[in-house]
Amino acid sequence: MTDRIVDFLRSRRPEGPCLVVDLDVVRENFRAFRHSMPDTRIFYAVKANPAPEILSTLAEMGSCFDCASVAEIEMALAAGATPDRISYGNTIKKERDIARAFALGIGLYSVDCEAEVDKIARQAPGARVFCRILCDGAGAEWPLSRKFGCEPEMAAGVLEHAYRNGLDAYGVSFHVGSQQANTEAWDGALATAAGLFRELAERGIRLRMVNLGGGFPTRYLRDVPGVPNYGQSILDAISRHFGNRLPETIIEPGRGMVGGAGIIKAEVVLISRKQADDPVRWVYLDIGKFGGLAETMDEAIRYPIRTLRDDGPSAPCVLAGPTCDSADVLYEKTPYPLPISLEIGDEVLIEATGAYTTTYSAVAFNGFPPLQSYVI
Amino acid sequence: MTDRIVDFLRSRRPEGPCLVVDLDVVRENFRAFRHSMPDTRIFYAVKANPAPEILSTLAEMGSCFDCASVAEIEMALAAGATPDRISYGNTIKKERDIARAFALGIGLYSVDCEAEVDKIARQAPGARVFCRILCDGAGAEWPLSRKFGCEPEMAAGVLEHAYRNGLDAYGVSFHVGSQQANTEAWDGALATAAGLFRELAERGIRLRMVNLGGGFPTRYLRDVPGVPNYGQSILDAISRHFGNRLPETIIEPGRGMVGGAGIIKAEVVLISRKQADDPVRWVYLDIGKFGGLAETMDEAIRYPIRTLRDDGPSAPCVLAGPTCDSADVLYEKTPYPLPISLEIGDEVLIEATGAYTTTYSAVAFNGFPPLQSYVI
Repeated sequence: MTDRIVDFLRSRRPEGPCLVVDLDVVRENFRAFRHSMPDTRIFYAVKANPAPEILSTLAEMGSCFDCASVAEIEMALAAGATPDRISYGNTIKKERDIARAFALGIGLYSVDCEAEVDKIARQAPGARVFCRILCDGAGAEWPLSRKFGCEPEMAAGVLEHAYRNGLDAYGVSFHVGSQQANTEAWDGALATAAGLFRELAERGIRLRMVNLGGGFPTRYLRDVPGVPNYGQSILDAISRHFGNRLPETIIEPGRGMVGGAGIIKAEVVLISRKQADDPVRWVYLDIGKFGGLAETMDEAIRYPIRTLRDDGPSAPCVLAGPTCDSADVLYEKTPYPLPISLEIGDEVLIEATGAYTTTYSAVAFNGFPPLQSYVI
Repeated sequence: MTDRIVDFLRSRRPEGPCLVVDLDVVRENFRAFRHSMPDTRIFYAVKANPAPEILSTLAEMGSCFDCASVAEIEMALAAGATPDRISYGNTIKKERDIARAFALGIGLYSVDCEAEVDKIARQAPGARVFCRILCDGAGAEWPLSRKFGCEPEMAAGVLEHAYRNGLDAYGVSFHVGSQQANTEAWDGALATAAGLFRELAERGIRLRMVNLGGGFPTRYLRDVPGVPNYGQSILDAISRHFGNRLPETIIEPGRGMVGGAGIIKAEVVLISRKQADDPVRWVYLDIGKFGGLAETMDEAIRYPIRTLRDDGPSAPCVLAGPTCDSADVLYEKTPYPLPISLEIGDEVLIEATGAYTTTYSAVAFNGFPPLQSYVI
């Protein structure tokens, strides 16, 4: 919660649920990454929040951009980034989208299999590629599946395949899982990456880059280590595994860059009980799983919630969204403590919601408009 | 799959993933409901698919509309429905939205607690209200939570509270769970409803209506009973519990009205394995959980998928969407059999996707546009 956001909400009084993002916090976060990892290039994960004001602020500060689609590439370009500061970081790309990206000047692509290499070799000849490897994601709060990446043994073959097809086998990427609370989580993957560097070198191919991915957390209800702790721990691990032949490095913060910069303002629509003597209240907000809070799926991300009545005693509530979908429940397995004096019509502030909210919101489910956003 | 949809896709060749809905199927479904339950008013659940062409087709045929928000009420009115054919069926309503609905002429509202009754009494004096009761949802494929409705003992008090505050205590509603395969599922709730009619009568309040909700299924991979089976089973249960004092009845089909009328055309973006000898392929489509297939959450709804290679042998695949979100996986716990000869670039048709797809799609996650829709 920043004074600028408080002032904005007080003076503008926007109707309906909305996200307010404070660019000063984004700037601070960018500086913290740059300061803690001065030799690492920062590729902001555009998908976390592609608001034009955020992209242009970061472009001005010298950030690079990790894009998931041609549309995101176009947004980064429109914000002032040059093509050499943009990666097409999705391992799943249509061949015609690779052609479009290449025509826009993009020269850096991610892959995790030979079929994707073949598409890039055909449509983006000579481009740099990095191969994503699987990583277990222990310690992360947002579920990491096996969707992206391949086993390290396979990655060597994928990179050699790229090299033999005229591409620049540039490096290795991995992701330790979103909202990663363990600063040591990068160690194992860095050991694997170093092994791949050695194996490829034996095949006459010189990898140069390690993409350390994202995973840098936002502070929700629990304290998380600061960016300097991550920077130091990662730097130590790189030295440990690569010795004095340090590779180029990239990070792709999304949540860590913008999560803490935003607040969602919402409203209590209804408070009820399911039977007269029910100890647990149901509290229904005007925002839910389909209006921007998709990351409450399986109660994964637990946001801090503030009300004007937090001074008084609280009691556990089931918290739900406003739609007619029975799956639109935010917290039920672990009920959320809210003030006993909470009333229908009260404003609630959902903190640390700058990332992965606006773009997840449904286009019109139940006739509700997508989440409104203000970047100040 | 209908000839009209096949012809449309063949002649129009739309770019990108899209839903095509055949209005002839919607018309057939409406006639089937009307024929099987001639004394029941049909309130189409607008949230299932609010395409203007669907709403105006149903309005012309005499359908009523169950709306979840003021925006849906406005869409139903724009499609030609008169206010007396519209219910505001969401139990979670802002007081100012009730005032807006009342100003638009809406006189039928759902409630499940006294606080909601109070809002309606203030903003829609004299309106009809029905109280939703909890129902266990056994036999339903889409999870039904305790989000809507109250325990029956409490419902009597809620309805009496409505009566004492100048509202018309009109009846009782319940929902047996979406995609309900058991035609007998209505029996228990109807017994409870009949008990409430008797209890309120003893308090001098004459309920007249039972809202039987939705739950009527779409045929996905398994056969489901036809509408006539549901009609007969429900009619039998009503007679059993209400004797010869039959109440007015309402149904709210959504999935059962439009689910089977739509097909999503998608494309295979990538096929890969996680290691060289992996027996399971990963197949990535250009549509996923955030592009319209939200009901694959927890692998709840399993859609039929057709390709042009279905004649040959098949093998299990993990099926995933195109976004950089690791949660965007459709079927993994139970892999999906797809042709061994399936190739990148192949078209796939995802059947029975007319309901709960377009409006669930994210506004721009990863820069991908929301699901395109054609109603023919």
